[in-house]
Formats: sequence, C-alpha cells, structure tokens
Amino acid sequence: MKNTPPVKDIGFAKLDFARRTRTGFGETVFGPGKTPEQMVGIFKAFRERRLPVLATRCTSAQADALAAAGVPVKYDSVARAIVSGWGRNRKLKGRVAVLTGGTADIPVAEEAAHTVEFFGGTADRFFDVGVAGLHRLLSKIDAIRNADVVIAVAGMEGALPSVVAGLVSAPVVAVPTSVGYGVGSGGVAAALAMLNSCAEGVSVVNIDNGFGAAVVACRMLKAR
Amino acid sequence: MKNTPPVKDIGFAKLDFARRTRTGFGETVFGPGKTPEQMVGIFKAFRERRLPVLATRCTSAQADALAAAGVPVKYDSVARAIVSGWGRNRKLKGRVAVLTGGTADIPVAEEAAHTVEFFGGTADRFFDVGVAGLHRLLSKIDAIRNADVVIAVAGMEGALPSVVAGLVSAPVVAVPTSVGYGVGSGGVAAALAMLNSCAEGVSVVNIDNGFGAAVVACRMLKAR
Amino acid sequence: MKNTPPVKDIGFAKLDFARRTRTGFGETVFGPGKTPEQMVGIFKAFRERRLPVLATRCTSAQADALAAAGVPVKYDSVARAIVSGWGRNRKLKGRVAVLTGGTADIPVAEEAAHTVEFFGGTADRFFDVGVAGLHRLLSKIDAIRNADVVIAVAGMEGALPSVVAGLVSAPVVAVPTSVGYGVGSGGVAAALAMLNSCAEGVSVVNIDNGFGAAVVACRMLKAR
Amino acid sequence: MKNTPPVKDIGFAKLDFARRTRTGFGETVFGPGKTPEQMVGIFKAFRERRLPVLATRCTSAQADALAAAGVPVKYDSVARAIVSGWGRNRKLKGRVAVLTGGTADIPVAEEAAHTVEFFGGTADRFFDVGVAGLHRLLSKIDAIRNADVVIAVAGMEGALPSVVAGLVSAPVVAVPTSVGYGVGSGGVAAALAMLNSCAEGVSVVNIDNGFGAAVVACRMLKAR
Amino acid sequence: MKNTPPVKDIGFAKLDFARRTRTGFGETVFGPGKTPEQMVGIFKAFRERRLPVLATRCTSAQADALAAAGVPVKYDSVARAIVSGWGRNRKLKGRVAVLTGGTADIPVAEEAAHTVEFFGGTADRFFDVGVAGLHRLLSKIDAIRNADVVIAVAGMEGALPSVVAGLVSAPVVAVPTSVGYGVGSGGVAAALAMLNSCAEGVSVVNIDNGFGAAVVACRMLKAR
Amino acid sequence: MKNTPPVKDIGFAKLDFARRTRTGFGETVFGPGKTPEQMVGIFKAFRERRLPVLATRCTSAQADALAAAGVPVKYDSVARAIVSGWGRNRKLKGRVAVLTGGTADIPVAEEAAHTVEFFGGTADRFFDVGVAGLHRLLSKIDAIRNADVVIAVAGMEGALPSVVAGLVSAPVVAVPTSVGYGVGSGGVAAALAMLNSCAEGVSVVNIDNGFGAAVVACRMLKAR
Amino acid sequence: MKNTPPVKDIGFAKLDFARRTRTGFGETVFGPGKTPEQMVGIFKAFRERRLPVLATRCTSAQADALAAAGVPVKYDSVARAIVSGWGRNRKLKGRVAVLTGGTADIPVAEEAAHTVEFFGGTADRFFDVGVAGLHRLLSKIDAIRNADVVIAVAGMEGALPSVVAGLVSAPVVAVPTSVGYGVGSGGVAAALAMLNSCAEGVSVVNIDNGFGAAVVACRMLKAR
Amino acid sequence: MKNTPPVKDIGFAKLDFARRTRTGFGETVFGPGKTPEQMVGIFKAFRERRLPVLATRCTSAQADALAAAGVPVKYDSVARAIVSGWGRNRKLKGRVAVLTGGTADIPVAEEAAHTVEFFGGTADRFFDVGVAGLHRLLSKIDAIRNADVVIAVAGMEGALPSVVAGLVSAPVVAVPTSVGYGVGSGGVAAALAMLNSCAEGVSVVNIDNGFGAAVVACRMLKAR
Repeated sequence: MKNTPPVKDIGFAKLDFARRTRTGFGETVFGPGKTPEQMVGIFKAFRERRLPVLATRCTSAQADALAAAGVPVKYDSVARAIVSGWGRNRKLKGRVAVLTGGTADIPVAEEAAHTVEFFGGTADRFFDVGVAGLHRLLSKIDAIRNADVVIAVAGMEGALPSVVAGLVSAPVVAVPTSVGYGVGSGGVAAALAMLNSCAEGVSVVNIDNGFGAAVVACRMLKAR
Repeated sequence: MKNTPPVKDIGFAKLDFARRTRTGFGETVFGPGKTPEQMVGIFKAFRERRLPVLATRCTSAQADALAAAGVPVKYDSVARAIVSGWGRNRKLKGRVAVLTGGTADIPVAEEAAHTVEFFGGTADRFFDVGVAGLHRLLSKIDAIRNADVVIAVAGMEGALPSVVAGLVSAPVVAVPTSVGYGVGSGGVAAALAMLNSCAEGVSVVNIDNGFGAAVVACRMLKAR
Repeated sequence: MKNTPPVKDIGFAKLDFARRTRTGFGETVFGPGKTPEQMVGIFKAFRERRLPVLATRCTSAQADALAAAGVPVKYDSVARAIVSGWGRNRKLKGRVAVLTGGTADIPVAEEAAHTVEFFGGTADRFFDVGVAGLHRLLSKIDAIRNADVVIAVAGMEGALPSVVAGLVSAPVVAVPTSVGYGVGSGGVAAALAMLNSCAEGVSVVNIDNGFGAAVVACRMLKAR
Repeated sequence: MKNTPPVKDIGFAKLDFARRTRTGFGETVFGPGKTPEQMVGIFKAFRERRLPVLATRCTSAQADALAAAGVPVKYDSVARAIVSGWGRNRKLKGRVAVLTGGTADIPVAEEAAHTVEFFGGTADRFFDVGVAGLHRLLSKIDAIRNADVVIAVAGMEGALPSVVAGLVSAPVVAVPTSVGYGVGSGGVAAALAMLNSCAEGVSVVNIDNGFGAAVVACRMLKAR
Repeated sequence: MKNTPPVKDIGFAKLDFARRTRTGFGETVFGPGKTPEQMVGIFKAFRERRLPVLATRCTSAQADALAAAGVPVKYDSVARAIVSGWGRNRKLKGRVAVLTGGTADIPVAEEAAHTVEFFGGTADRFFDVGVAGLHRLLSKIDAIRNADVVIAVAGMEGALPSVVAGLVSAPVVAVPTSVGYGVGSGGVAAALAMLNSCAEGVSVVNIDNGFGAAVVACRMLKAR
Repeated sequence: MKNTPPVKDIGFAKLDFARRTRTGFGETVFGPGKTPEQMVGIFKAFRERRLPVLATRCTSAQADALAAAGVPVKYDSVARAIVSGWGRNRKLKGRVAVLTGGTADIPVAEEAAHTVEFFGGTADRFFDVGVAGLHRLLSKIDAIRNADVVIAVAGMEGALPSVVAGLVSAPVVAVPTSVGYGVGSGGVAAALAMLNSCAEGVSVVNIDNGFGAAVVACRMLKAR
Repeated sequence: MKNTPPVKDIGFAKLDFARRTRTGFGETVFGPGKTPEQMVGIFKAFRERRLPVLATRCTSAQADALAAAGVPVKYDSVARAIVSGWGRNRKLKGRVAVLTGGTADIPVAEEAAHTVEFFGGTADRFFDVGVAGLHRLLSKIDAIRNADVVIAVAGMEGALPSVVAGLVSAPVVAVPTSVGYGVGSGGVAAALAMLNSCAEGVSVVNIDNGFGAAVVACRMLKAR
Repeated sequence: MKNTPPVKDIGFAKLDFARRTRTGFGETVFGPGKTPEQMVGIFKAFRERRLPVLATRCTSAQADALAAAGVPVKYDSVARAIVSGWGRNRKLKGRVAVLTGGTADIPVAEEAAHTVEFFGGTADRFFDVGVAGLHRLLSKIDAIRNADVVIAVAGMEGALPSVVAGLVSAPVVAVPTSVGYGVGSGGVAAALAMLNSCAEGVSVVNIDNGFGAAVVACRMLKAR
C-alpha cells in the first residue's frame, strides 16, 4: 500500500484506505443519508484495493443497488448491515457475548454482533434473556462466562447489564435501546439506569449504538 | 365517639379524629417543619382519645420532646418514625415483604415497614438483596413468595422491582430512593426505570416515599 | 399438561404455555411490530392447547388476518385488543372500577378493562368523570366505592387519582395518558402529578399502560 | 408631586415615586439581598413623601431594623411581608379568594393576600382545602363563589386550580408552590399540571410567586 | 329550556346544553379526532335548541362536511375555528387586545380572537409587534392601552408579554407558541420565559392555547 | 523573555507566562478553590516578571491575603475580581457597552467590565435597563449605540439581548444570569430565551459567565 | 429612497426596504411556510427597488417558482438558500472561516457561508475537520488563523469550537447541529457542550442556526 | 480459607471475604455515611484474614480513626482513598493511562488511579491535558499510546475522550466530572457529550465515578 495515497476523495466522501494500517481496524460506513449510487461508489473504491468494508444502518434498497452493480456483498436485514464479500480483517482472539433483554432489542444486538465479526472477533448470541424472567438468563450463564467481553443490550428499564455484571468477571459494555414508551422513553430511562448501575464493571455507549459497543469490545480484545 | 367533634383545631393543625372510623386507618403526621411543642400538642390530643398516631420523618429532638413531656412513644431512629404507646389499629390479614437493593435504602424501607405495622399489617424485612449480587435475592425468594404484597425499595438503577416481579405472583409496589449520584441522581433514574419495568405487576410511588408504599400495600390487604 | 413442553419456539417467538400454571395468569401478546402471519401463528399455537390468549395494541388488520385464517377471536377496536374465543382464565373474586378523566382517555381505559376481564376479573367502567366537572364524579362515587381496586386513567394535569383516592378506601392504580399538549405533553405532566399525589393510596404505572395497571389490579384481587 | 423628581437614586436603589400615579399601584420592594440599612433607607425615602410601600420575602431582622430606626411598619412573619404604617393605595372594588391545598402552602398564600390588601383589594382566605379531602373544599364553595377572582395556591400535584375552576365562573390564577419532593419536586410537577389544566379559566404564575398572582388579580379588579 | 334535559348523550359525546345558563358561556367543541359526521351531529343538536357553538382546531374537511349537511356555519382557516351561524352569547363589556410577536404566531392569536368574539367580547388585533423591532410595538401602544385585558402571543424567546406588561396597566395573559426550533423548541423556551417574567401583571396558559387565554380574558371581562 | 521558561510549575499550578505573547491576552486565574497561600504564590510569580494578572470570582479573604503578603492588588468586591497593581495589557481600540436587566445582575456585569478593562478595552456600564421598564433602556440607547460590542446581562426571562439587538448594529454577546426562581430557575429560562432570540446578531455564553463574554468581546475588538 | 415609503405591506408580509439604510444589512426572508406565490411576490417587490434579498431554508419548489416567474435568482440546494440576482450589499472587510466537524454538518455551514457572502463578507470553508481525526484540523490550522472570525459548526458532542478556540485568537461563533441521536439528541448535547466550553472566546447560537451565526460574524466584521 | 465463612455480618455491614476468590478482585468499601468506628471495624475484620481492602471517598477523619486504632493504612487526601497496609491483589498485566482535562478533575482521576493500583494494575497519570490547549495533549500522546486502556476524565464540555480516542487504538473509558457550572452543570453536559462521541472506542461511566472506570479497566486487563 506504499504507493497509493491513503485517502481518496471521491467527491461525496473522503475514503481512508490506510485506516486498517493505522488502527488495526478496517473502514466502516454509516449508511443513513447516502444514496444507492454513493454506496456503490464507496464499495467499488474499497474493492479495487481488496480492503474489507462494513456499512451499518443500511436499507435493502442500498443493498439491492450494490447487487445490481455487480458488487458482491452480504446484507443482513435484521442488523441492517452490509459487509463486503472480499478482504478480511485480522482475526481477534477472544469471544464477545452479545445479550438482549427482549426480542425488540435484537436489531441493535445484531448490529453489534456483525460488527464484531467484521473486525475479526467471535460473537456468541444470547437473545431474550431479560431480567423479568430470570431463569432465561441463569440457564445460559455458564456459556456467557466464557466470553472475554459482554455486550448487554436492553431497552425499557435497562436492568440487564447490572444483573449480568454481577454474574461474570468480564467487562460489560451496556447498550441502551430505544425500545419502550412513556416516561423516559426513547431509551433515556435505560441509559440513565445503566449509568447508575450498582454493579461493578459496566460502561455505557449511546442509545441503539450497537456498532459503537462492538468497537469498544474489539479494542478490548485487540489489547490482549 | 358520638359526642366529640371529629375534627379539632388546635391552632397549628386540624386533627381528624374520625379518620379511623371513616377509612379504617388511623391518623398519621408528617414530621418535617413541626416544632417539638407542636408535636407534643398533637400527640396529647390523640392520647386523650386513646387514638393511635404515627409520625414520619421525625428527628430525635421531636422524639425527645415527647418523652420529656411524659408522652409515651417509641422512636425508631432508622425509620425516623414515632409511634404512640397507646391505642392500636385493627389487625390486617396478610403479610407485606419489604425488600431493599442496598443498605443505604434501609431508612426508606423501615419507614414502610413501620407504617405497615402501625396500620395492623405484618412486615417481613429482606434487606440488601440488590440485583448486582443475585444470590442474595434468590436465597430468600421462597420466603418472599409468602407475602401478599411486596414493597421493593431501590435506588441507583432501580432494577430490583423488575427482577422480583418476575419471581413472585403478588403485586409489587416499587419505591425509588434518592440513593445514587451523577446523571439521573436524586432517584430520577430509579423512578424512570421502575415506571418502564418490563415485568408485569409493578406500580410505583414517589421517590423515598416508603410511607406511601405502605399505605398502598395496606389498602390491598384491607381489600381482602 | 405434563407431557407437553411448556415453551414452544415457533421461530419468531417463544410461547410460554406453562405461564398460567406458574403465575395463575394466561399468556398475553404485545401486538405492535408483529405481522398478521405471526399473529395467526401465535394464536393457533395457543388454540391447539385450548389456552386463552390476549393481544394488546392490535390493528384491525391483525384481527382481520386471524378471522381470515379461521381463528375465532373477538376484536375491540377502541381497546385495540384481541381476545381468543376459546379457553378461559380462572375467575377472580372482586371488582375493579376503571375511571377516565375524559373521553380521549377511553382507549387506555378499555385496554385496562379488557385485560381485567381476560384475567377473570370484573371491570366496572366510569368514563368521563374528570375533576373539572366534579358533579360527574360525585354522582358515581357510591358505585365506585363498591370496587376492591380502582384504576384511574387521566391525561393533561392527571388530577383524577388524587381526588378519587380521597373518596374511596380501595387502592388506586393511576394511569397517566398521553392526552394533552404543550409543556409536559405526552403524559409527562400527568405522570409527575400522579407520583406527587397528596392523597394516600395511589401508585402509578407508565404512560398509557392500561394493560400494566390491569395486571397490578388482578394481582391484588388474586391475593385476596 | 409636580415639583419633586419622580425617581430618586439613593445609591443602592432607584426609587420610583411616580409609580402610583402612572400605574395606579404603589411601589413594592423585593426583600432578599437587601441589608437592614438599605431597607431602612428605602422605607424612610417613601415615608418622607407619605407614599405606601410593601416589601416581600423579608426576614424578621429586616423588620427589626426598621422598628429600631423608628420607622412604623407591620411585619407578618408567615407572609414574610413588611407594610408601611403610613399612606394607603386607592381602594379596589371586588373580592379576591385566596385558597391553598395544604398548610405548607400558606406562606405563599399569605404573601398573595397581603399584597392584595396592600393594593386596596379585599382578600378572603380559604386555606387547607386540597383535593384529597374534597369535603373541605365543597363546604366552602359558596363563599368562594362570591369572589371576583380566585387565587389557587397548591404544591405537590397542583390539582386545586382545575377542581376550583370547574366550580366557579371567576378567573382562577394558579400558583404552584415548591411544596413536595421526589420526581418533579420544587414545584415543577405542580406548575406543569396547572399549565395542563383541563378546566377552563385558569392561568398560571411562577412557582411560589404569591406576589405575582396578587398583582394579576388586582389588575383584574382595577380593570373593573 | 325548562323542559329539555340539559345534557344529551348522542353516542359519541355528551352535549351540555345548560352550560350557558350555568356559567354564562356557551358550549365549545375541541375539533381534533372528531369525524365530519360527528361534527355534523354535534352542531345539529345545538342548532335544534338555537344554542351557539364554537369548534376549535378544525380542519376545512370538518367545515365542508357541515356546509354539505346544510348546517350554516362560518369557518376561519387561519384560526381553524368553526362558529355556528345561529344563536349568540351575551355581550361582554370591555375590549381584549390580542398581540403577536411574529406572523407565525397569528393562528394561535386568531383562535384567541375568535373565541373572545364568540363569547361576546370585542377583540382588537395587533399582530407582528415583536420585541426585536420595538418601533412596531411602540407605534401601537396607545391603542393597546385602551384594552381591559391584553393577550400576548409569542414564540421563540417569548419576551413580548414582559415588555407589554411594563407599558400597560391591564392584566396580560401570555400565550407561548410552538414557533421556534432548537434548544427549548416547541414553545418550551417561550413558556419558561413567560413564567419568569420580570414584569408585573403577567399570567400564563399552555403552549398554543389561544382558546384558553380567551376564556381567561372573558372571565375577567365578565367579572366586571 | 527569551531566557525564561514560558511555563513555570509552582506545585499547585502551571503558570503560562508566554500567554500574552502568544494570544495577545494576559493570564487570568479562576479564584474558586484556591487557598490564600496559593493565590499569593501565583501573583508573586507573575509579579517577578512584571506580567499583569486578573483573578475572578475571588473572596475578600483571598484579596486580604495578597495585601497582607505585600502584593499590590486592587479588589472589587462586587465583581469579585482581583487585578494586579503592575503591568498592563496592550490597549484595545473600541468600546464595550455592558448592560444589565436588573440590579441583581450587576456582579456578573462587573466581572465582564473588569475583564474588558484588564485586557485593555473600554467598558461603558448601563445597569438596570431591563425590558419591563422600557423607558430606562430607551433613554440610554444613543450612548449604547456608540459601542462596538454590546454585552447584555440578564436573568429571569432573559429578554434584554433581543430588545437591544433590534436597536443597535453591533454584535450582542448575551449573558444569562442565575437570577430568578421557580420553573427554569438558575438561569435556564434566560439561557433558553437568549438562544431562541428572534433578533439578529445575538450569541450566548454560559450562565453567569461575565468573564467569558468579555473575552469574546475583546477578541472582537482585537480583530479590528 | 427619500420618496418611497420604507415599509410596504403586500398582504402576507411587511417588507422593510429601509433596513439596509438603518442597519447596514439587506433584508432576508425565512423560507419555511411561505407559498411559492408569496416568495415570488416578495422577491418582485425587492427587485423593483434593486435591493438585494436572501431567502434561507428554501425548497427547490420555491426556487423553481421564482425561475418560472422570470425572477433571476441563484439557488444552492445544499445551503437551501436563494439569493437575488440583482443588487449587492456593501463589501465587508475581513474573512470568516466556516468549519464543520463532519459532512452531515455541511448544510448548516453552507447556510452560514452563503449568508456571510450575501452580506458582503468573504467565507473560507473548512469542512469535515472534526476532533476525532485531529490531523484533519491541524493540517488546516494556519489557513484558519487568517480568519477574523471563526464559525465552528458541529453536532454530536460538539467539541470542535473548544479545540479551535484554543488554536486561534479570533472570536469563535459555535453552531450546534441536530446531527446525532440517542441521549441529548437533536443537538442538545452539542449545544450544552459548547456553552460549557473550557476554551476562551466561544459564544453560541441556537441549534442549526447557520444564518444567525453568520449575522453575528458580519456584525463583528462591520464593527471593524 | 476453607474453614472460615466467606461472609461475616458485623452488624452494620456484611463483609464478603470470598470476593477475591470469586471474581479475582479484592473487596472495596464506599466511605460516605460510615462512622469512623464502622470503618475501623471493617478494616480490622479484613486485617484478621490478611485480605487487602480499599475504601473510596473517605474523609481524613475516617483515616485518622484507623490510624488511632492502630490499623496500618495509607490515606491519599486528593483521591480521598484509604488502602490497607497489608495484603495485595494479584498483579494485572498491562498499563492504564489516566488522563484529565483540567486540574479540577484530578481528585476523580486519582480515585481511578488508586483503584487501578489497588487491583494490581499500573496507572500512568497524564493530568491537565485538556483540549483547549492541544499542545499539552499532543506532547504526551506517544506515552499515552503505550497504555492498554485509557481512562479519560473531564468536566465542562467533556471533549477529551473524543480527541484521545481518535489518537490511540486502545479502548477509552470516559469519566464525566461535575466540574463546571451553568447550563448542563453537575457533569450533565460532559456526560451527554461523551455518550455522543463521534470517535470510535469510547464507553462511559457515571459522573465522577473514577472507581467505576478503574474496575472496567481492570476487568479489561484481567481478560487479557
């Protein structure tokens, strides 16, 4: 990569091809607001260099445009993520457990899991293990304890990270979701609860930010 | 009580002696802002009629003034409650379990427990059973299931009511406490979390309102 | 039910058939986000076992899909609730009075009333008895006093529970609604007012949570 | 008054002696932050011209300083108001009913009542008529209906103005008080409730602003 | 009206025909959520008794439906108000000045002005006299001083009521509007500013509540 | 200054002696939390180099300690500012008008004025010109128009900057103050109002930040 | 312009033709809510007098209507600004640097830049120089230091103004944008951060208010 | 430890002696609210077992009481932390960089650093490297890059974590502090900014929670 400029300005975006060299992590793209044409342009530029790329919060229209343009990608409609069909980030050692309180939290959790996998980590999914039905969580706790990092995704009262952090010794990255309604809706109640966790070992990212939690988790694994 | 007027105006307060007849519950007094002299006056007026009386959020100075004036009362310094040494409310059938997340929540819980006992109910205390150390709660859960109503008192992220409501079939009255600090401090995070509980069977009273929770619980028992 | 597994995973949902055995209450379904096909699948699974099921916050499209699939249900368009035409929960002793401040609060109140009835309780409706026209409430108060639990549903300034709790000796479950506009809109003003009620015996559920209030009420009746 | 300058700068304050001529209302002074010496200076300047003056939110120290300086004033320790012993505003026709929800609201109500009286109006006091004990309000409602304006002072859930406005045809000026605690404390819950009143004819002033409500009421009477 | 029942339940609404007798003010209808058919039903019921009726926040579709049904009404598309073409409330003595800060506040102001006129008062309009161009207000101030009550309607920083109240001796009813954006948007900044007005004689109604301000103003005129 | 290190670490602070060279502005010190001994140490270090220094939000105890240590300073008890009696910043061309709405805003305004003067600018004070008594502002407006920058300091509803910005063509730096009480207290209502100003040419600094406004003003003058 | 009236009322707007004479700045129009016909009317009225006019937050439909009506204008679809093809404001001396943190902030920044240019100033654009990739900002800092005023536009955590103000000696006008999501979304987190900037020389306008920031900047230049 | 019970109830606290065995981390004590006598009792109980113990947010009075009782401890008055003079936790591999924006953030940072050291990690301190003086941070960045985890402590606008996370590849644990005043004071502005960080790799703990950040960091190191 010595002889190619590390940043390419393709008009609507500045692409950072040297990013993986610099930080160890490949480039990612935030989907919202990008036209299908722009998405095709971005993916093609990375493909020329065989650099992997992940796009989050994408619509199926964006994925379809890539397919129609002959760009080989995989689209996960739950995670709303597009991953390039070429290149690959370095493998990360260690496992990330991704938990959700309810089924409505799954899209955020899948965004986190896909991001972990894109960056070379291993994601183990434990969905619908919310605290109102404790047996669901307790029946899985031994498997969760295998993880080096736990991502706990929950809306409403956001209690899952507190309960989990008391049961494992790994760091817990808490992701509040906008699931819920009424007082403190939009994830505010969950976010406040997570920041006020009485359990040790919990840190918090922004509401619905599954991607951000995954990057934190991968930086942890990478530090290993 | 036919020949005595049901309300007595003693200058600084209107005392409602017929309250027990009307609602089945004896009179209570909110301590803050009342001088020791006023407190003595109130308790003496009830004592003349042999009517029981409970005062909440009281200082030891108020209790001392009553003792000095020869008024037989019991003062609980943790609950900050003064109970008259005479009279007695009708016995309520059923048990109320009073739980706390941490030790800092105990004053609010004791206010609730003393209020339940004043109104003739039975209060079982289960303190320091917060969700960050789940074994503490699970080891007591069989005893808690004996209760007809559960009062769950918790600050910080306020997750205890959600977890408990998933483990019992009794109604859970949630009391957020002002324990905690930072974002959503003063009990706001806990209150929001409890109102957003994903568990069924939870209703909420105001922050630190142990007395209010106890009245709700006793109305439930009385309805039986 | 010994030989059937208590939980069935039908792909898009984990159905809990043993719930009624465990907690005494049948299963309920939260309608929003579920496709008509998923709704049909869920209802059919319960029907096979002759277990009653209630779905809340449903669209008429969801109800129509069930009818078209030959699943016998009743849909109440005001309560937005679908109830299975088979099975039945155990009868609960006692009555629940369901009150609203205005006519705009009725959908939330009907959700509460239908839920009470689904769980085997008796719901008495007293709608449009808001505090700005006190005669409306006072003319019904004797009938309301017959209830073992009162559910008071109100938006705007949320004063109804305070006034009612001063007139009855039953516990009052307050439901703020999102009716209103301007400062504190979306039910926030009502929720704050209810948590700050100067009347004894009031506890609060989340905004528009008629279902939640009904479960609290039924747990109270069941405790009897 | 032709030959005296209408404003006098006495160093720490600009006194507006022509105010009564201009607006029909005498001058008032906001007590907090003023030294006893400044208070004496202000009152003496008005006394020279025989102009009446009212000072609100005053300490007894401020009143004592005036007495010690030989300035004839009356101090009401509940209203925390000092009124000059000389001069007099024009009489206003009509009556103002001043109501409180509880006894803790009385200082704010007395500030309102004293202000009405200072400006030449007649204030009728109806204290401790909160909505949780409706009989207290209803037993006084005929007398309240005599008023041309109602000032309704209440903390906690702030429901009093809504109930009153449905029972009278006079305009209701609502004053939220900082009485209460927990969620929405400091008068916020009451203020929001009052702005969201479902009753017609209610307008609102700032929390604890008894003085402000009285000025609004007097402007109404003066307009007559 | 002796022989007709004062309230008629027409299925979707309880009509209060005796309202004018009781409070001196005719009935009003809140338009949002009512179908054109319901609107026709309501207006016809009032027409039978020759009672005037005002409907606020109406769409042109609702007005068209009334016209199509042969019900004689007038619709003001700015005020979004429908007034019956029959009956008439008693005349109120005195004038109400209705001011706006900007042109975007006019719909709320027109709702206020139409309501004043419906109830028999006289409304003088002074629009677009906001404080950022003070000459606009000062050039009209003599005419505004003729009013017995001022309604000041403003969004954004909501400064108009403070400035006006310092220039007139009439009471000022402040109406914050939802005009504005960014921090404190939706009228919150304006509402807070109005409640904190440093000027005397200002009271506040909810955001965009032109109707409510008009009722307060008319109660003031009626008191005369 | 070539041979002295530009930053000196005196244990409890890192002093930046090259600051004036770099940015054109001398060093300033934030008083709160600094012991009198630390204050003496800081001022002595600057004195050795004959560099001017300003300390804001200081107590008289801090000023007294400097005097007792023989350090020549001037203390303004209203502005709570200490200025060194040696050195001098370069003169700035142009004038800054500093306005307040009320007398309670003066300490913040004096902090701004002293800071302007310390940095070599000229500050013209126009205090107590709030919008509720418009004649006070209008009588001074010609003098205010001489300023190159206006600093408008106001609490409560914070309307002063909007009115002023409509009357001058200079930029207006708005300073909300914590003067006021009730809803939006602590300066929040004023800050929101100022950010929502309908007048052009207004920008805002944090609540009570007279120092910050002065630095903005001086950067403007310096740019000239 | 002596013989033409300075303000023309064209029915839906009062046009201020003398504005440029009075304040030195030409007239501007806020696009939202104006019909294409109204926009044509406004532009034609200004064209008759050869006065320049700028309209902000406009749709392409509004621009198309002007073109169709033969009114010569330029429309910038990113800035959403329409500028008249005639007249010209006086030239302002000095340069304004307009910075953005990310690409999503560009529309707000372009509104600012176009406004600066309309008023006769020179705008230098430095986009996508956010603090998470500091090299982008540092590589441009020498050019930014040439500016007499800096406008720093940023969403999310709003850190750009703090970093920039520490690197330049010009005043920094901070514009929070509504870019971001979750806790503090809609620009609130950015606005709070900017008001709390630890750097000196920063003042703030409302969220997304690029126009307002430009007027502040031009008043600064004009003051020179 | 086989024969001693893992939890000892010493009346005012339940001591968890098995904690280190279970989670790998020794016990810690939250100082506030504990009497000196209780503190002595707790430390003595741990000393008997030679288990290390850390107490946070302690007063010097608590430390003095321990010294007076002959308990060997070290007290750091800046960190407000007491560490036992016996026992030792297992060594953790890897380094934690602890950064502060300003000097006022140091107590929170020292709490974090002491906690890291207590748990066996290595803490490197980089204080006063806030973003308003970027050279301070950039001059230390190579050393900071040696860390496996970065704890970034900042008040006011809370921008430090965003800038740092863009310069390192380690995970960044952000700690907002209550340093600051005005809008968003008490750390709220900083907390919101950190949750909205545009930089990747940032997660957040509660305001002033240096201890919590350290536990997260140590769990990361331990996972290695």
